[in-house]
Amino acid sequence: MLRQYAPSILLAIFALSLVPAQGQYAFQTKYLDVPLDHFSYVNGSVTFKMRYLINDTYNTNGNGPILFYTGNEGDIENFAQNTGFMWEIAPKLKATLLFAEHRFYGKTMPFGNASYDSPKHLGYLTSEQALADFADLLAVINPSNRTVRGRPVIAFGGSYGGMLAAWMRIKYPHLISGAIASSAPIRQFDTDCGVFNQILTSVFSVAYTRQCSLNIAKSWDALKNASSSADGLKMLNDKFKFCSNVTKAEDITDTFFDYLTDVYGNLAMINYPYNSTFLAPVPANPVMEFCSRLAGNYTNGTELINQLQIALSIYSNYTGQAKCLNIASAYDSNMGDAGWEFQACTEMWMPMCSQGGGKDMFPKKDWDEKKYSDDCFKKFGVRPNKNVAMTIYGGEYLDGASNIVFSNGLMDPWSGGGVLRSGSNTNIKIVLIPEGAHHIDLRAENENDPGSVRAARQVHLQNIQLWVKQFRKTTKRSYF
Amino acid sequence: MLRQYAPSILLAIFALSLVPAQGQYAFQTKYLDVPLDHFSYVNGSVTFKMRYLINDTYNTNGNGPILFYTGNEGDIENFAQNTGFMWEIAPKLKATLLFAEHRFYGKTMPFGNASYDSPKHLGYLTSEQALADFADLLAVINPSNRTVRGRPVIAFGGSYGGMLAAWMRIKYPHLISGAIASSAPIRQFDTDCGVFNQILTSVFSVAYTRQCSLNIAKSWDALKNASSSADGLKMLNDKFKFCSNVTKAEDITDTFFDYLTDVYGNLAMINYPYNSTFLAPVPANPVMEFCSRLAGNYTNGTELINQLQIALSIYSNYTGQAKCLNIASAYDSNMGDAGWEFQACTEMWMPMCSQGGGKDMFPKKDWDEKKYSDDCFKKFGVRPNKNVAMTIYGGEYLDGASNIVFSNGLMDPWSGGGVLRSGSNTNIKIVLIPEGAHHIDLRAENENDPGSVRAARQVHLQNIQLWVKQFRKTTKRSYF
Repeated sequence: MLRQYAPSILLAIFALSLVPAQGQYAFQTKYLDVPLDHFSYVNGSVTFKMRYLINDTYNTNGNGPILFYTGNEGDIENFAQNTGFMWEIAPKLKATLLFAEHRFYGKTMPFGNASYDSPKHLGYLTSEQALADFADLLAVINPSNRTVRGRPVIAFGGSYGGMLAAWMRIKYPHLISGAIASSAPIRQFDTDCGVFNQILTSVFSVAYTRQCSLNIAKSWDALKNASSSADGLKMLNDKFKFCSNVTKAEDITDTFFDYLTDVYGNLAMINYPYNSTFLAPVPANPVMEFCSRLAGNYTNGTELINQLQIALSIYSNYTGQAKCLNIASAYDSNMGDAGWEFQACTEMWMPMCSQGGGKDMFPKKDWDEKKYSDDCFKKFGVRPNKNVAMTIYGGEYLDGASNIVFSNGLMDPWSGGGVLRSGSNTNIKIVLIPEGAHHIDLRAENENDPGSVRAARQVHLQNIQLWVKQFRKTTKRSYF
Repeated sequence: MLRQYAPSILLAIFALSLVPAQGQYAFQTKYLDVPLDHFSYVNGSVTFKMRYLINDTYNTNGNGPILFYTGNEGDIENFAQNTGFMWEIAPKLKATLLFAEHRFYGKTMPFGNASYDSPKHLGYLTSEQALADFADLLAVINPSNRTVRGRPVIAFGGSYGGMLAAWMRIKYPHLISGAIASSAPIRQFDTDCGVFNQILTSVFSVAYTRQCSLNIAKSWDALKNASSSADGLKMLNDKFKFCSNVTKAEDITDTFFDYLTDVYGNLAMINYPYNSTFLAPVPANPVMEFCSRLAGNYTNGTELINQLQIALSIYSNYTGQAKCLNIASAYDSNMGDAGWEFQACTEMWMPMCSQGGGKDMFPKKDWDEKKYSDDCFKKFGVRPNKNVAMTIYGGEYLDGASNIVFSNGLMDPWSGGGVLRSGSNTNIKIVLIPEGAHHIDLRAENENDPGSVRAARQVHLQNIQLWVKQFRKTTKRSYF
């Protein structure tokens, strides 16, 4: 239920784990024992096994850089398979590829099947602990001491993983030479709560015709009206073929509204210029495909709802194989979803709202801090720590940071929380991809990639080469 | 007993709390509730009261910089009173003075009198938690959000406090504009274990004549020989007037040797060119005073021991008021000592050894990792986490850091673990004080200060002014 407040990053990302790994890229799977708690000594020396994936075949000189994917809120194998950019540049850089799995996701479960049982276990799921896990991994893979320094390490990540990549460079600059932080909304903790839905609306306004977002804006009332009568509910059941019949108004105005809101966010995030199977099989340019089916000037609510159902099938049933429409949640059974909800209920505090009234295509919904906090307490026994992410990571105040590329697709609703200008700090690089969706630049090359994505990858490579060069210059012990 | 391995930083610093605050400088005492554990959510929202001291009288414009002393392993009042440099520059900078007390020291006891009862309590004593306490304090004193940025903050600290000041800038660059890290041995985790005692020996070799260190080197055997007979023990009791009579050889070769080793370290650390009362009342240039009394060519062990006793009184009884010599420990009853021992048994791993045989003035003593670890386990139920400080803070690898001054007195034995060269990173500044003892540059001006100390303070002030100027330039929101 918290999801309604936060069209979650992992909606895009997490569903990766629903898709079988394609196995395009090969790696060894290994495990490292890391401390459950890096920052206190009350638990003795309790450790757990963190999974990581490594491919060392391109490191033919033995001292190439390490390209290090800093985990995400999901199964790391899927990120390894879906971050083609790293695989494409590794041979050029004679680099080692390393992908670390974030604690409490994928197979990295500190308490096994009991990891999500209570805050006594789940309470160790924090970004700071995860970063410290990654630091420990690098200390093993790439040891430094006073006479020998290891190899340069470049951090990579998309979305929450991009936040982790940037923070890894900020917090552990001695371990990380630079970071490619793609679609990393590190400003989302302290930005307008409505910006996500504003951008989302503009994506649906420009993809085909503006009529699309206007129709979406109208659809909420049409659906609400239909939901207020038994006949209307029957019509909706017949039309959408819900897997569980809707039986009361709230099934529409809560559950279905949330589902639709998530679908629109997801469509924008995965609005790639080629077919993809991120969340569900979708065609190339899925927002345009959706909007081309919802572009008319419909004279009544039923007609609008008819078209909405047709448009929605772009996302919900592109293969034509779906027997019914499951609006409960695509990921209720997915642990990762609960993990991110827990993080959003503790330190990853990202207020979301919609303004309605023509300012965005959603019904007006204020950010209700108290309700959010109460829901968190009910679900997890914790309350949000509103300021902690800003205090620990600094949000947009980056003047002490260096060697980070922040890349953002401007058609990604998360770009509203991204770093889009570098200010006076020339050691922070900004890459904007006007046509880009969510971290498209980290994906494998595709013939349909727009020029801005190709250019972004070139800039990434240049920066990586620069950071490696800088590192080589300072490899010799400077401080003694 | 762990102390023998680590002539402790806090030997110099800690004893401050034994000296009544002189009350030269005035401040308000306040408390802030901070989380017991910043990095997990297993304890609900348990907090404790962190003490801090603030003086806002010089901040006449309302937006002056904040000069922030980042705590130490001791009572913060004494650091406020003994860091005259901050008080001297505050009026010039129209600055606020802020001194935070490190958790588990002074009056900042998370579990009150039970704070040191068990690792279940003491386990929350880590540098990372302390830094996070300080970050929380700044978030309250100096809030920033997306529209308003707070005032520039300059971190200060000496010894362990200097390490914290540097790490605070490295880990929280958005909160700290720059750091003056005086006598901060951040390389001590990964340096030669013998370097401390080598420098110490050279201090005792050059202060008066080399004969002084040669006599100390001979004294260990003379004392050991005396301790091997009942007559000899009686002679030693008569000579030194131990508060508890020594009754067996180990009382000399363990307890008294440890005491003497600590005294030599302390004398070097507080070898200021004016009277001081840090650890005990001592005259100006106490090493020279000591050595001038132990400079002869003594023909036998008894004569050497006679002179050693006379020289030792410079430290142990300069006022002539002491009734007996307490060699057990100057600070056994001081909680802070146990706190630092715990930290040295967990993350503050600083191997120490002596080479003997003319290479230093001490009996040969190898670094015995196993014994150290076993002693830690016996005492605290924990074992050292050897690599954690290097992994978390990076030791000498500072190429990603900026806006830190590392200042070191070269006559300070801790300078062996300090940052003495800046390598290619021009944003790290080095200040060397050839005649300087332990963090003398942070003390109040004194007419006997050598020119190098005066110059160091000038450089500090220039860097602080530069950092404040840099901050003012970027105060306007750059990232949006």
